[in-house]
Amino acid sequence: MKKFLNDPEQVVDEMLEGLLLAHSDQLKSVRSDNRALVRAKGPSNGKVAIATGGGSGHLPLFLGYVGPGMLDGVAVGNIFASPSARQMLDVTRAINGGAGVLYIYGNYGGDVMNFDMAAELAGMEDIRVETVVATDDVASMPKGNEAGRRGVAGMFYLYKLAGAKAEQMASLEEVKRIAEKANANVRTMGVALTPCILPAVGHPTFTIGEGEMEIGMGIHGEPGIHRGTIETADEVAKSLVSTILQDLPIEAGAEVSVLINGLGATPLEELYVIYRSVHRLLAEKGIHIHRPYIGEFATSMEMAGLSVSLLKLDDELRELLDAPYQTPFHVQK
Amino acid sequence: MKKFLNDPEQVVDEMLEGLLLAHSDQLKSVRSDNRALVRAKGPSNGKVAIATGGGSGHLPLFLGYVGPGMLDGVAVGNIFASPSARQMLDVTRAINGGAGVLYIYGNYGGDVMNFDMAAELAGMEDIRVETVVATDDVASMPKGNEAGRRGVAGMFYLYKLAGAKAEQMASLEEVKRIAEKANANVRTMGVALTPCILPAVGHPTFTIGEGEMEIGMGIHGEPGIHRGTIETADEVAKSLVSTILQDLPIEAGAEVSVLINGLGATPLEELYVIYRSVHRLLAEKGIHIHRPYIGEFATSMEMAGLSVSLLKLDDELRELLDAPYQTPFHVQK
Repeated sequence: MKKFLNDPEQVVDEMLEGLLLAHSDQLKSVRSDNRALVRAKGPSNGKVAIATGGGSGHLPLFLGYVGPGMLDGVAVGNIFASPSARQMLDVTRAINGGAGVLYIYGNYGGDVMNFDMAAELAGMEDIRVETVVATDDVASMPKGNEAGRRGVAGMFYLYKLAGAKAEQMASLEEVKRIAEKANANVRTMGVALTPCILPAVGHPTFTIGEGEMEIGMGIHGEPGIHRGTIETADEVAKSLVSTILQDLPIEAGAEVSVLINGLGATPLEELYVIYRSVHRLLAEKGIHIHRPYIGEFATSMEMAGLSVSLLKLDDELRELLDAPYQTPFHVQK
Repeated sequence: MKKFLNDPEQVVDEMLEGLLLAHSDQLKSVRSDNRALVRAKGPSNGKVAIATGGGSGHLPLFLGYVGPGMLDGVAVGNIFASPSARQMLDVTRAINGGAGVLYIYGNYGGDVMNFDMAAELAGMEDIRVETVVATDDVASMPKGNEAGRRGVAGMFYLYKLAGAKAEQMASLEEVKRIAEKANANVRTMGVALTPCILPAVGHPTFTIGEGEMEIGMGIHGEPGIHRGTIETADEVAKSLVSTILQDLPIEAGAEVSVLINGLGATPLEELYVIYRSVHRLLAEKGIHIHRPYIGEFATSMEMAGLSVSLLKLDDELRELLDAPYQTPFHVQK
């Protein structure tokens, strides 16, 4: 196993210790096990607080989105495993500034169950909680069944837009409305070239043949919709973009933000080659790009692959997208 | 070959096209082949301009460091190959604001030859050029032969500190002094777990056995100083840090900045596990850490591995390090 580790069972705890040593000016822990992280400066009185959470192994997802202009807290699970309801509740208590708490997270069974339980427990303490579950992964369920889809890299936009809205001191209803609007207007399609390795397992739990790629594979290796020979960057981009546009029609003259997300091992050089293809495809259709994001936003450890997300913009979403944010991993001025 | 490419010979041109489509608000090309990039807004009258350059395949190195607070221009070579003197000269002309131009780049034969030629040609056009060559890679030459060492991730600090000094409208001599001071006070040690693949070759040009690592390997796969069984993160960190401290003694009570740089495929989670180890080792020695940087700063495409750089700080360097900068890849407020 080609990893830098001590005890494979301790990787999340050691990662969190390193993270807090590096970024104590931005993040703090509210539990002795470091599995509930919140902004170093908080809570903010009267501001709607936003929490997320999920398994580890996806940095900068999930904990990398806590900071001004983004989220207020995060519950941190083991590699690819949900955090507990208790960890989520501890986050909820710590970030509550009296205006309510919005949960935004990806649609995975364990996370849904635990966040629902945390919301119920928080309700008993008179903390108002609302929930928006991200379901941007087109490949994970056919059209008509959008609510059953998984949340992947497009979740970034839910965080970004709801975070900006909360920073404007909007009400819980308004912040929730923006997160729902973002979710309704974002779609993601991914493609994987290699598997990743769970530290505690030590070898890939599935394989993708030499010369093969899998379109639609999830960020935990969930099966995709098509496995075949690796195609050119232009062909891959065309396949991803056309699948998205079949699902979410975007008319000529419309404006989108594009997120080209590397899954781990794929070099930035290749992400820019793909961005070039995506830009050309959208330009041919008369679709304008505003504020592209290119880099690693939701990874799957050392998986080679990438995803393309398109977010359909209107004036309201564009303004929220342009607002500044700061986390230990990204800064937007 | 598990890459997203069209024609492997066109990867750099297509990457550059994607980059300019994405970041035209920050970068512009001064040549029809896009191999000379400068800040979108420039040159700055009376400011010392800083240029760099080198082969592709290392993003965000080299072109990712052009922007306010950092560099003014970059010459872009093919994968792992030096740009031409003519491309460097075009950069030099485009960024010259009348106060002279400083070249900062890594110590590789082709780059040295071409930058020297570009400096000579610029001199004939009455553009003052000075040069500082980065030599931070401890593993590449024994102590006593520092000037023969290669430049690797620690080059980031030369860019950052000289860039901040130039932004203060300091003279060419002063900006050069800072770049030299940064180079004298920074050391890097790397470790590789896997090779990378040149797109035009299609397979690894060397191998590292399953279960093996190579300490001191260069970012183009140059041989390191020790190949052996993969050690724990704590042991790897100890080996890298102790080699650096033997070369550049740092006393208790001193302050350093630490850069944990991922070479490509190594997940951020592992970089934070290594940061934890490095932080502990330095704390034991009474060395304080100021402003750690953890992420991808100088990669080798999809190579798995990382490097640790230590920069010894004093008041002057700390102040320059803390100054803001903005590039398409990183923002520091």
